[in-house]
Amino acid sequence: GRKVLIVYAHQEPKSFNGSLKSIAVEELRKQGCGVTVSDLYAMQFEPRATRSDIVGCLHNSEEFNYGVEMWEAYKRGGLSSDLIEEQKKVREADLLIFQFPLYWFSMPAIMKGWMDRVLVQGFAHEFPNCYDSGLLKNKLALFSFTTGGSKEMYAKGGINGDIRYLLWPIQHGIMHFCGVRLLAPHICYAPEYVSEEERQEMLIAWAQRLKTLWKEEPIDCSPEWYFK
Amino acid sequence: GRKVLIVYAHQEPKSFNGSLKSIAVEELRKQGCGVTVSDLYAMQFEPRATRSDIVGCLHNSEEFNYGVEMWEAYKRGGLSSDLIEEQKKVREADLLIFQFPLYWFSMPAIMKGWMDRVLVQGFAHEFPNCYDSGLLKNKLALFSFTTGGSKEMYAKGGINGDIRYLLWPIQHGIMHFCGVRLLAPHICYAPEYVSEEERQEMLIAWAQRLKTLWKEEPIDCSPEWYFK
Repeated sequence: GRKVLIVYAHQEPKSFNGSLKSIAVEELRKQGCGVTVSDLYAMQFEPRATRSDIVGCLHNSEEFNYGVEMWEAYKRGGLSSDLIEEQKKVREADLLIFQFPLYWFSMPAIMKGWMDRVLVQGFAHEFPNCYDSGLLKNKLALFSFTTGGSKEMYAKGGINGDIRYLLWPIQHGIMHFCGVRLLAPHICYAPEYVSEEERQEMLIAWAQRLKTLWKEEPIDCSPEWYFK
Repeated sequence: GRKVLIVYAHQEPKSFNGSLKSIAVEELRKQGCGVTVSDLYAMQFEPRATRSDIVGCLHNSEEFNYGVEMWEAYKRGGLSSDLIEEQKKVREADLLIFQFPLYWFSMPAIMKGWMDRVLVQGFAHEFPNCYDSGLLKNKLALFSFTTGGSKEMYAKGGINGDIRYLLWPIQHGIMHFCGVRLLAPHICYAPEYVSEEERQEMLIAWAQRLKTLWKEEPIDCSPEWYFK
């Protein structure tokens, strides 16, 4: 069975994001997948990149360089236990699903902290092993998120600009950089401002998509996809 | 005298980012500006958006909605004291400078958390008061950051794509949304990989730019600037 890690960032289990997460867990388990959830708020996941992420002595204690220290710590098995745990989940996963409400054209800080702290050099990338040869190649990722703004606001001529513009840093800059191929994002526009019936339809559409997810082809993660 | 708030995110005072921050403090004070620094790591600034940001009872304790609760808490003066403090600094500032190392095509999580938690509806925006009529209009912002990759990597045909692509969510999606006009970003490419002499030149260039900063015109923060 395939393995899926859902990295989930919402404070409220009863939220629409919570429902989207639960549907994914249920549907994927029904398919026989092994599903793990990192429920970041419930875990009180630490988003700050600090000295505490390194166990033991520093490589250079005179001048703290987070990137260098994390790389060195990874190589000698000296990362903090929460990071070792998350890296183990990533290593085992065939697919990463990120489920979150869009905060300021991006993911909430708690999830950005997961990216900053977990995707360490040596583990997820190591020059020249980046992009198509990134260390997490052969994995897939899918960003599933809700917005405050409507689909019209996130259209090409809309006030917020094309939704794909804001996907560039997170899909290309993070996941593609690590070698992960991207399935098309799953976007629920403005669930807070639609009817209960439309919200139900959105949940059904997500469950439907998941049924044939493994047959999907990754997107072509090139500038053309984002800015054409 | 004009007032400047520098929101600074680096763990190490001796770092290149630390030097850029110190140069700004020194040069702007020399000009007679009032300068305040929010040193996020030193403050152990909380990046997570949680129930703890609201003092007292919730508007709806049945189902926690962070955006709604923060809006209501702002209106009744019920935000946590760290947020009231940051909002006071923003309110008084004519210019916001964000100083940070680029982490994953964006700001470090600790700074994203500052955006998520401080720029509350009612304080920074309140529909339809967004973009040019955002509640922080008449203020300026400047993103000053360092990269790991070289200028060539962040060129239009480069492996990371045009650096402006990744500025869209942070300049347009956050600052412009709140009505803040943007001065051109200040980017120091790959200071870790250049000579000590070149690093010194970068510091001098920043000090030089600051001397005439108040004469600069804001950029035209439209899709053309980013994706032309």
